Amino acid sequence: MLKLYNFFRNSAGHRVRIALHLKGLDFEYVSIDIRAGRQHEAAYQAVNPLMLIPALEHDGHVITQSSAIIEYLEELHPDPSLLPADPLARARSRAFAATIAAELHAMNNLRVHKFLDGELGLDAAQRNTWFQHWNKVGFAALEAQLAAAPKTRFAFADHPTVADIFLVPQVYNLRRVKFDLAPYPRIVEIAAACEALSAFQKAAPEAQPDYVEGQ
Amino acid sequence: MLKLYNFFRNSAGHRVRIALHLKGLDFEYVSIDIRAGRQHEAAYQAVNPLMLIPALEHDGHVITQSSAIIEYLEELHPDPSLLPADPLARARSRAFAATIAAELHAMNNLRVHKFLDGELGLDAAQRNTWFQHWNKVGFAALEAQLAAAPKTRFAFADHPTVADIFLVPQVYNLRRVKFDLAPYPRIVEIAAACEALSAFQKAAPEAQPDYVEGQ
Repeated sequence: MLKLYNFFRNSAGHRVRIALHLKGLDFEYVSIDIRAGRQHEAAYQAVNPLMLIPALEHDGHVITQSSAIIEYLEELHPDPSLLPADPLARARSRAFAATIAAELHAMNNLRVHKFLDGELGLDAAQRNTWFQHWNKVGFAALEAQLAAAPKTRFAFADHPTVADIFLVPQVYNLRRVKFDLAPYPRIVEIAAACEALSAFQKAAPEAQPDYVEGQ
Repeated sequence: MLKLYNFFRNSAGHRVRIALHLKGLDFEYVSIDIRAGRQHEAAYQAVNPLMLIPALEHDGHVITQSSAIIEYLEELHPDPSLLPADPLARARSRAFAATIAAELHAMNNLRVHKFLDGELGLDAAQRNTWFQHWNKVGFAALEAQLAAAPKTRFAFADHPTVADIFLVPQVYNLRRVKFDLAPYPRIVEIAAACEALSAFQKAAPEAQPDYVEGQ
């Protein structure tokens, strides 16, 4: 039995939901409201001492970090694969996902924003400079990675892979804050191809049991 | 033929060097002085349009992102493996590496420091607050991940895996700035076990052809 600790408004959790739905795996959805700080409560700390979501519980074992969770699901349930078949395309797909994790999402998430606003006392203009900078640099890098690879239906294959799984939540987050995606046409095209699939629709924030409109 | 674009003082490049030496693979070392901005020159931009190091060139194809490069090497040259054999231990090893990449190294590297100092105008005290915070939170998380797993000779197996490969450069960087590692005894123990191996010694900054003492 799989149990996913996550929150509708959590980008890394969104990635894991997409992977689970693409593989057609049933899972129990456990909502941890990170905006209310529920990840710091003793009940969740017993599950994941790191007090971060998402975490996947499988047969009593807890796995953290979305990229590691997805590789784990891939090894246990290889069909349908969430990686391209060709080694070079696999590397490109993993590199693209790693760019999103370490160069986009790492720089702009709830706990980083809290630290910039609180401990460092950045004003709104400075925080926006930070936000715009890393997203623009990052999206340009992603668009360049796509341009350097053979064109396929999804990012690096004719089926969705980890690259697409990491891309869609990032695009979703940036659309919410009206970040201009026009300079990245290939990304917009791939996101649209993904969003037409039921697995991506089932994994969307709006489709989760803890979704609250306007939050 | 493998060609590694990197720099002696580059943490992500250091990871790939360890992986190459552990697998006993020959490679050409191409030095790109990122402190002098050489990654922005046209010659390197033709290799990697993202203008980041490391990049591994294999048969004319370029692969980026240290985690993707190491998985690529693992798939092409599976022996000796850089992952544990057990699926759960593999997931723990990858999660540990992802924590270092996205929650420690992403927050404190040359280009982030340049942005904090330059565009955001942080003073030395603010920048140190930032540095200490993410490294303390991150190292505590790493130590907790190790404590939650069965004890082995290296991080998650009796041989070095991606967890150890990502850990050693991070420990190296923090020792240079005299960050206090005493609260993380298991990390210190694992780093020492790694540093006794010739592959880790060959990959160290001091052993690289572009090494300059005191820089």
